[in-house]
Amino acid sequence: MTLISLSGSGPLIDGRQSEAALLVRRGVQRLLEEMRHATLPELPLASGRRADLISVSDKGEIWIIEIKSSIADFRTDRKWPDYRAHCDRLFFATHGGVPADIFPEECGLFISDGYGAHLLREAPEHRLPPATRKSAMLNFSRAAARRLMAAEWAAGADWNPGMLPE
Amino acid sequence: MTLISLSGSGPLIDGRQSEAALLVRRGVQRLLEEMRHATLPELPLASGRRADLISVSDKGEIWIIEIKSSIADFRTDRKWPDYRAHCDRLFFATHGGVPADIFPEECGLFISDGYGAHLLREAPEHRLPPATRKSAMLNFSRAAARRLMAAEWAAGADWNPGMLPE
Repeated sequence: MTLISLSGSGPLIDGRQSEAALLVRRGVQRLLEEMRHATLPELPLASGRRADLISVSDKGEIWIIEIKSSIADFRTDRKWPDYRAHCDRLFFATHGGVPADIFPEECGLFISDGYGAHLLREAPEHRLPPATRKSAMLNFSRAAARRLMAAEWAAGADWNPGMLPE
Repeated sequence: MTLISLSGSGPLIDGRQSEAALLVRRGVQRLLEEMRHATLPELPLASGRRADLISVSDKGEIWIIEIKSSIADFRTDRKWPDYRAHCDRLFFATHGGVPADIFPEECGLFISDGYGAHLLREAPEHRLPPATRKSAMLNFSRAAARRLMAAEWAAGADWNPGMLPE
C-alpha cells in the first residue's frame, strides 16, 4: 500500500519508500511550504544518488533533506556527506521515535510528526558554485515539470482530439 | 467540463482554457517532450501575464508558446510581444482550422492535431540576460514543484500519521 497515490501505481509515488519515511517527508514538506520553499521528493542528482527531498526557497537557496525513519536507516548510510555537493544546506529529517542525538551536528535536523515538523537545528550554509547551482536548478525544474505532466496525463483518460474544430 | 482532471476541480487544470486550447496544448506538449523539453502550462510571469505554455530544454533554453485556438483569439491579443522578455524563443501554436498565415513571421509556429504537433516554423533566438534567466528558472521550478505537491496532496486522502512508529 502506498499512502498517497492517484491509483495503484500513480506517477506521484515511486513505491520504494516506507510508510514511516513518507510520513516524515510529508510533515517536513508542510513546514517547508510554510517557509516558502518549493519541495520535490526523490530527485536523482548528477552524482547518480537520489535526494529524499530537495527544496528551493523563494530566493533560490537549495536545501537537501535526507529522511531517516529508524536508527538503522541512518547507521547504514555512509554516503550522506556526498549530498553537500548538491545543495546550499544539508539536513536530516526523522520522527520522535528516533533519538535526535544520533544525527551529525554539522547538519540541520527536522523532527516530523507526519502532520507537520519543527526545525530542531539549523544547517550551516555552504553555497553552491554558480555552475553547479545552474545545473541543479535545471535538474530540479525539469524533473518537477515532467512529473507534473505525467500526473496530468495519467489522470486524464477522456480527452478527445475529435473535439478540435476543423 | 475539463478534459483532463483528477477530480471535478483538481489542481492540474485551471478551468479557464477552452477545450480546443487544451487539445492544441497537449499535442504541442507531446512534441516538446520528444524534443527533450520539460513543459509547464499556465505559468504566471514576473510581468503579471501568464504564459500558456513554457518549456525548458535539456540545455536550459526557455521557450514560450502562446496558444491560439481561433483567428479571433489571435486578433484580440495585442500584448504577445511582451512575452519575448521572458524567453529565449517565442512561438505560437494553433490547429489546422486556423490559417497559419495570420501569425507573425518573427515567431515560431506549431500546428497541433491534439495527439501531436509539428513545428511549421522555427523561432529566432533572443537569449535572456543572465539575471532574467535566473529568475525565470526559479519561477518555473518553484511553480512546477508546488503544483506537483498540490496534486499529490489532493490525490492522497488516506494517509495516517498514526502509522508512525513511536
